[in-house]
Amino acid sequence: MSEPQSYDRAVFFISDRTGITAEMMGHSLLTQFDALDFEQINLPFIDSEEKAQNAVIRINQAAALYHKKPLVFSTLIKPKVTHLINQSQGIVFDLLNTFIHPLEEELGIHSAYAVGRTHGMGSYATYKMRIDALNFSLNNDDGNTLRNFPEADLILIGVSRCGKTPTCLYLSLQYGILAANYPLIDEDLERSTLPPELEPYRHKLFGLTIAPERLQQIRTERRPDSQYAEYQQCQYEVNAAEKIFRAQQIPWLDTSAVSIEEITVTILQSSGLKRRLHG
Amino acid sequence: MSEPQSYDRAVFFISDRTGITAEMMGHSLLTQFDALDFEQINLPFIDSEEKAQNAVIRINQAAALYHKKPLVFSTLIKPKVTHLINQSQGIVFDLLNTFIHPLEEELGIHSAYAVGRTHGMGSYATYKMRIDALNFSLNNDDGNTLRNFPEADLILIGVSRCGKTPTCLYLSLQYGILAANYPLIDEDLERSTLPPELEPYRHKLFGLTIAPERLQQIRTERRPDSQYAEYQQCQYEVNAAEKIFRAQQIPWLDTSAVSIEEITVTILQSSGLKRRLHG
Repeated sequence: MSEPQSYDRAVFFISDRTGITAEMMGHSLLTQFDALDFEQINLPFIDSEEKAQNAVIRINQAAALYHKKPLVFSTLIKPKVTHLINQSQGIVFDLLNTFIHPLEEELGIHSAYAVGRTHGMGSYATYKMRIDALNFSLNNDDGNTLRNFPEADLILIGVSRCGKTPTCLYLSLQYGILAANYPLIDEDLERSTLPPELEPYRHKLFGLTIAPERLQQIRTERRPDSQYAEYQQCQYEVNAAEKIFRAQQIPWLDTSAVSIEEITVTILQSSGLKRRLHG
Repeated sequence: MSEPQSYDRAVFFISDRTGITAEMMGHSLLTQFDALDFEQINLPFIDSEEKAQNAVIRINQAAALYHKKPLVFSTLIKPKVTHLINQSQGIVFDLLNTFIHPLEEELGIHSAYAVGRTHGMGSYATYKMRIDALNFSLNNDDGNTLRNFPEADLILIGVSRCGKTPTCLYLSLQYGILAANYPLIDEDLERSTLPPELEPYRHKLFGLTIAPERLQQIRTERRPDSQYAEYQQCQYEVNAAEKIFRAQQIPWLDTSAVSIEEITVTILQSSGLKRRLHG
């Protein structure tokens, strides 16, 4: 809670586990009010009355510091802990409980009111699926080897530095998808057909492309003054790659103005692959 | 919508962008009702009335298929699109709008009602911070090089296969933290001091450990019948690593029963490092 003068007010994300859901929801809501600058504090693992009492002290201190009621985005479930936080000087947005009662009514059953069901370890099988997917991405990056392509759920293709590696890692860590990638190099781009070694995996391919200007910028940061980073080279590669995608009817996406999350969701929509993890 | 017989009812996550927030919130809520088995369908990028009408058709088809009202978790913001979805046969849980009005009242300003502010590209500076952090993790994994340790925000240490790499990748992709890691090998473990090359970075160190049984299981999958995977070897390494953490007062965590998210949030709490991205 340093430099109070630079913030309008404090915001707390409070949870019995990691607080990641509370942060994501709170952040989504706060982006609708971007004229204001909030000090954002995550209070995770608030799973006992003692910890809740300490959280109340921090919330009340922030209320005094900013002379404004802190916003408190809560995914707490336990009634006793929730009750304590509600008695703080914060304005509590009860993100889960608000919807639990209508859900109970519609489903006709009682909720478990159990803590720690999100972003927890889950089963060992789920954990192993996630780590296996991550290792698969790391081991099948950049076309080092094609030997595991038969096991891949998805193979991203595109020129160097168009976003393949971050997307593969995101797909594995957050979705449990076995994502490999294959860089299209000059030799591949000179043909207008698919590299023959990719032919058996045609149904798993998804192309990524990027604006030549953006590619030049990214490559220049990596290897300044190289031929690799020259605008003409970038333009040639991008055009040739897109020509292959079109001619071979490979689904593809321009990554220039979209986030890793948007690339990922677009690929899943196109491929019909399903999320395997709730990361 | 295949195999309807195996599900109790359909659940839709609907959003004008990726639907990741809607999925996370919906999933958090549904874990409180785990006696039921839901068909889960993500409908992302619903940013026009035409797409909303198509979404309504899918929701109504699911209502007919399961003879039960689908649950619809929505982070839609646009009033016209929201209005259309509300006319479907689903029970709509309006995750953002529910809280926007009380927020407007407390903050005394109007919300932007703008779409696509979460999981979008954001600024190029933010995107670059994320990719730079990811590349930093990939390039400073497994003690390959120590030359970038001065720039690291955080250096994870621990025996091979205790969870360092997945945690570093998660920290970089989701939080924009520059996370390196250094594996403690036999040579390091024979001493009970820190490896001398880590001494200058003592304030950045965080130790990970793991139950020897779990370590044996993970290593056996990787290299069956190796000395590396033997129980005695695992037990020796884990004990020696924990002895170093204790003697050198390095903060540390047992990763055996916790998720990557929980490890990450615990490390941030301990180190005081702040989230740099809202991933």
